[in-house]
This record gives sequence, C-alpha cells and structure tokens, in this order.
Amino acid sequence: MPATATQNVTHDFSTLRINGQRLWGSLMTLAQIGATPKGGVCRLALTELDRQGRDLVVGWAQELGMTVVTDKIGNVFMRRAGRNNNLPPIMTGSHIDTQPTGGKFDGNYGVLAGLEVVRTLNDHGIETDAPIEVAFWTNEEGSRFVPVMMGSGVFAKAFSLEHAYAATDTEGKTAKAELARIGYLGEQEPGDHPIGAYFETHIEQGPVLEDNGITIGVVQGVLGIRWFDCTVTGMEAHAGPTPMALRKDALQVATQLMQEVVASALRHGPHGRGTVGMVQVHPNSRNVIPGRVTFSMDMRNATDALVDQQVTGVKTLAAKLQADTGMRIDIVQVSSYAAIGFHGECIDAVARASQKLGYSSMPVVSGAGHDAIYMARLAPSGMIFIPCKDGISHNEVEDAQPEHITAGCNVLLHAMLERAMA
Amino acid sequence: MPATATQNVTHDFSTLRINGQRLWGSLMTLAQIGATPKGGVCRLALTELDRQGRDLVVGWAQELGMTVVTDKIGNVFMRRAGRNNNLPPIMTGSHIDTQPTGGKFDGNYGVLAGLEVVRTLNDHGIETDAPIEVAFWTNEEGSRFVPVMMGSGVFAKAFSLEHAYAATDTEGKTAKAELARIGYLGEQEPGDHPIGAYFETHIEQGPVLEDNGITIGVVQGVLGIRWFDCTVTGMEAHAGPTPMALRKDALQVATQLMQEVVASALRHGPHGRGTVGMVQVHPNSRNVIPGRVTFSMDMRNATDALVDQQVTGVKTLAAKLQADTGMRIDIVQVSSYAAIGFHGECIDAVARASQKLGYSSMPVVSGAGHDAIYMARLAPSGMIFIPCKDGISHNEVEDAQPEHITAGCNVLLHAMLERAMA
Repeated sequence: MPATATQNVTHDFSTLRINGQRLWGSLMTLAQIGATPKGGVCRLALTELDRQGRDLVVGWAQELGMTVVTDKIGNVFMRRAGRNNNLPPIMTGSHIDTQPTGGKFDGNYGVLAGLEVVRTLNDHGIETDAPIEVAFWTNEEGSRFVPVMMGSGVFAKAFSLEHAYAATDTEGKTAKAELARIGYLGEQEPGDHPIGAYFETHIEQGPVLEDNGITIGVVQGVLGIRWFDCTVTGMEAHAGPTPMALRKDALQVATQLMQEVVASALRHGPHGRGTVGMVQVHPNSRNVIPGRVTFSMDMRNATDALVDQQVTGVKTLAAKLQADTGMRIDIVQVSSYAAIGFHGECIDAVARASQKLGYSSMPVVSGAGHDAIYMARLAPSGMIFIPCKDGISHNEVEDAQPEHITAGCNVLLHAMLERAMA
Repeated sequence: MPATATQNVTHDFSTLRINGQRLWGSLMTLAQIGATPKGGVCRLALTELDRQGRDLVVGWAQELGMTVVTDKIGNVFMRRAGRNNNLPPIMTGSHIDTQPTGGKFDGNYGVLAGLEVVRTLNDHGIETDAPIEVAFWTNEEGSRFVPVMMGSGVFAKAFSLEHAYAATDTEGKTAKAELARIGYLGEQEPGDHPIGAYFETHIEQGPVLEDNGITIGVVQGVLGIRWFDCTVTGMEAHAGPTPMALRKDALQVATQLMQEVVASALRHGPHGRGTVGMVQVHPNSRNVIPGRVTFSMDMRNATDALVDQQVTGVKTLAAKLQADTGMRIDIVQVSSYAAIGFHGECIDAVARASQKLGYSSMPVVSGAGHDAIYMARLAPSGMIFIPCKDGISHNEVEDAQPEHITAGCNVLLHAMLERAMA
C-alpha cells in the first residue's frame, strides 16, 4: 500500500476507470499457457500447466504488493490490505482451470479482472476501508476431477475436504496427490476465511446479452438444476422380421420423453430449460430394434417449484407410457442444485455501477454453475455478466470483445469500491 | 446311390419322414464348433472355426456318397446324383457362418436339413430324377467381411468376385487370403452351376409364427429394404445459459423424424416396417445442447412402391422441419434391396407339402435377407420358415423346438421330391 494513499477522502471515484488494454494483455499472456492451435486453452486442473498458470497469477499479485494464502484444497487468496484489516475482505474471484477444449475467458476473466481492480487502486493510491481479496478456486470445471466447483464447494462445506481429496482422474491420480505435486496443497483450513461480500465477473456463456445488444448482465440468481438419467427397457429384435405390432421399441418411447423434456420447459417459461444432451442406444445397430435406451435429462428454472413442475410433467408422461406399452421406464436423479437468488445489495451495487458508468444493462439469470453459487451461502454475493460471441463457451472459439471485457471490470471496480468503503 | 433304388416307381412318398433325432443331433454336433459359454455359437466366416465347421459338414456329405465341389468364392455344393444327371439339380442350402453372438440354428439348420433329406432318401433307397444338391454359401452374415450374403451374391453376379475378394476384416486380412488359408478357395467359376429349383429352410427370426401358434411359414417373398443415414445439424450450446428460444437443438428435430420413421411404417401396413436402430449424438454431453445428431433409418415393405411411400413421408417431414427451424437435414441412402416375390410353383410346393403332412401353415413374408434372395434371380425359389423362441435370433439364446425343426425338414423333403421327380 503506497504511503500516499490518502487522496480519497471524498470517495468521489466517478472518473475512475480500469486500464482495459492492460487487462486484455494479461488475459492474452495467461492464455499462452496451455494454448491450443485453434486459439483456445487446455489447462486442466492440477496439471503442470495449471501450476504454471497459478504461478504466473500469484507472481503478478506479489508484484502488486498483495499477500498470498493457499488453503488445503488449493484455493488461493490474494489480499490487498485495507485501512481496517479487521473488516472481512471484499472479495472477487473465479477460476483459471479450463475445459479440455476451453477458451481464454471462462473463469480467467474473473480472476484477472480482480487483479486489474487492484492495479487500478494502486495506480490511484486508493486505500479501501475493508481489504480487497482476489481468489482463484480449485477445479471449477470438473473436467479432470469430479465434483465440479471443487474448491469453492469445499470452502462452503458443500462436501468434505476428504471427498475432494479422494477424487481421481482417468489415470487414477488423486486430487490430493496432484495438489501436492504442483505445490498448491496449502495449510489454511478451507472456510477459515471471512468474506464481507463476493462479486464474480464472468462471460455470460449464453446468447442473451448479445441477442439484446446489452453490455452488462446484472445477475439476479442462478437457475435451479435437476439432472436425471432415464432408461427405457424394451426388447431388442430384428428390424426385418418383426412386425410393428409385435415390437417393444425402446427408442420410440424414449423419443416421446425427450420431446416432453423440452415441451415442459417451454410450458414453464421464461426461464424454464430442458435438455437431453446424452443418448445411448443399445445395441445401436442399424437393423436391430433398440432394446434399451438411456438418456440424460437436464431441467432448470428460476425457482425450485418451477423445476418440480417440469419434472412432474416428464414423470407423468413416463408413467402413462409405461402403462400403455408395458415397457419399463426408470428415472434416476443424478444431481440437484437448488435455485439461488443473489443478495439484493450486491445486485443493486452491480446495477448502480453499470448505470453510473453509462453501460447498458439488464437483469439476467445464470443458467450455469459458478463458484459464486457456493459463496452465496457464506456472504452477500453477486455476479456481473458480459456478452460472449455467439453465446459460445467451453469451446476453443470462445471469444469476447475488449470493450465488454473493460466494461465488466469497471463495473466490478465500482461495485467493490461501494462495498469496501465505510 | 444304392443299387436297390428302384422301389419308388409309384412315387407314393406319403409316409416318408425324415429322422428328427438324427437332424437334431447333427445340429448339436456342429454347434460345438465355436460354442459359447451362454449356449450360442461364434463361428465367423473364413476363420479356423469356420474351416472346422465346413470340414465336418463336407465329411458328412462324403459319408453319404455325395460329391463335393467348391467354387472360387468358397461356396460348397454337395451333390447326390439323380437318375438323369443332365437335369439341373434341385438345390437346398443356407450358410454355416454365424454372428459373433449367434445361435445354433440360423443358417446351420438350412444346411443340415438338406443333408437330412439326403440321409432320408438314402435310407429308403429313393432315386430322384434330378440330382439333389445341398449348398452352403460363404459369409452370409457379413459380420467379419462386408458385403453380407457374399457367396450367394457373387454366385448371382450381384457384385463381382474381385469385390468380394478385396473385402477386409478389422485386422486387414482379405477374404481371398482367408479363403485360401482355410482351404476353401475352389476352382469352379461362381454361377457356372445350373439350378432347377432352390429351397431354403430357416428359422423365422421373427415372432409371427410363434405368436400365431403356427408350425410352417410359407414364405411369399422378401420385403424391399431401404437404408438411410440422416444427419440433423443444429448448434451445440450450454444447456444452462441458453434460453429455449435461442436454441438450435438437433435432437429435438431428430426425434420428430425418428417418430415419423415408425409412423409412416404404420400408415403402410400390414408389412410396413420402420426402425431407427442407431443414434449418435454430438457431443453427447449431459449439459450441452446437441449440435449434431446422426441416426439410421431402416424402412421395409412388401413392394418397392410402398417403401417409396414410407420414404416420402419421412423426407416430406424433413423438408418441413428444415424450413421451419433453419437446421440442415441431410438424408443419404446407404443401401437398397428391391422387394422380391418367390416363385409361385415353389410357394405352392411348400404349401402343399405342409398340408399333406398335416402341419399348420400360413403365408408369411421374410423381413430379413437370405441367400434365397439371390437364388431367386437364377431359378424358381422358395423358403420354409419355422418358429423360433420369442422370435429371437442373432443372439446366443436363439432357440427352436425339435418338433418344428423336424416339421420344417419334412416339408423341405416333400417340396424337393415334388420338384425332383419327373
């Protein structure tokens, strides 16, 4: 903290802006670690590349005069002291692990936007009342180790440290061993870390902002998610010699349920979502009537009650089809995440900052999971979305416009300042 | 041919019957070669096991006094001389290769029923006017080498000997090299072999006879078959952040087409059949909206015109869906087999024999391909079906009742005698 940090007595930050070029440059530099030929990034959690990425970010934080603490699940907290260090820090963060064919922005933007906020405060010698912290959470993506959002989940005690440690990758390596190997098995007990408020800046990963020509999404909450596996059991038989009336074609029943997953989402708009993403047909042979079809069902909505209604729609049809056809239909729940609403003060802080800065904004919901979901259990939390090209992420072509990258970080700066000043 | 074969001057064979126990015994003996723990048979074409099976059958034929000729594609013709050996032989046959998880009866029954007919004629010293031949055709199943019905197809000049020779298995071994290796690369030019009439006895491989409690299926013909691959191209996107209205969900379009494949078959009964057996979803991830779905379409009916109408139904819907959704739908024909009707005299001979022997019978169609399809191009042909348990074949649990095995062979005996006597 520079000794000259006494100029902000009036708290008038109306002209304060982050340095967009510097932020963009840091994103491009980090994206070189694990860069793919198609312009994306492959930097899976707890790999050697993840270590390199972590080391780079930690090094930048240290150059900014921040102190760095790592907890037992490898979450890293980079802290800029405040005027009153007994206050819980105003935190921002996200993750720097990527999907196998990931992009440059997912997660990484949220972390580097946090560092850019600190750089901007340093540039202007601004001392906040509460400390500022920038976190990156271990293994948000869940591509290499399950569960997803591992670091923030352990931090919020959604599941135990031991459960996370025991996770293995396809080669049988454990998360704990890999944390130790890359030097990020820290000593702090996860969760022993107060938080005053939490903000997370993220690309939208969807098409709504771009479709509406809006710069800032003021995230109201995260959709409730329910995942199921559905199996329809018929009788496999030759496609040729078996007349239609004597068939038990599992796929014909399954396709009706697949359509209902979508139809029930449409009946429960505007936030209802229904997706069948995964289908396995057995024996999957051109001239054999399918004897068994298993498919995934992903149902989401803004409230848990609405998700329940979608699920009921599908289960009601399944019961009818089972009775009509005599084919067995099993529906097994795989995962369930309750809908959450972000904290009113954080939502308002994001909306106010957008307005003050002159950015167009709209309320949006997050359809996907983020570390902020777990933070919302522990502290007032909010999220800031910016558009991404064609709504695409988890893809090497993931892209975002520099002006949006800048805008989201400016909103983060002002929302955090509002919370960090007495 | 026994010298005493002069007793059948009156042609009264009304009490003549095959030896069911002997036939059953030969089926069980052959089934030991390649026997699987689950009671099935794995004897893929042109393997060492196929050689052992061929050698066993050829040895049996030689014990019966038959002469054996092999052609260049490995088809084997086992001949019992007639009174007038200038007459083209009355032939029966099938195949002895099996599916990887095949049963004891598919194909094998047709070949061993032929040998049992010869044994019965020998037992009773019956001399036919025309010679009797029993054939087994190379690689009917097509499991190891494509095309299916390879031996009969080359014989009927449906495709060339060179095309068949060049077929490779998954290890890159050619059909020609494997024929030579197992000692069944013969010298006779395929097709240089006149046929007076052809009968093939086979398990139904479907449920119709069992469902109707009927012993003999008098096969009228074989359904026309059209195979297509259909690909729907949408846009993959995250299941969470993408609202329903902004999706291009390829699976939602594909499931409508899958249902139409079945619906159009039902509209064109009683023989219309429509099957989607194979589905591939890309990227096939639980929380990703499918960007591309490819699936097979198998449409069959008793006439080619009816198959055309089914195809038109599906293509019309595809055009509408493409226009409505903007998603591209490609439908590519993979294979086409014209419907065939068997020869009236052969159909009648099977029906008459069933009636004379007191077996219940009904006209049926074959929904599957058999070597008899190619023989029908060359000579009057017909088929005899018997029930199989639960309509199941191409499965290790494939089963048939000894009384049906016996009945089908008795019908074969009498139908062949009718054609082989002046």
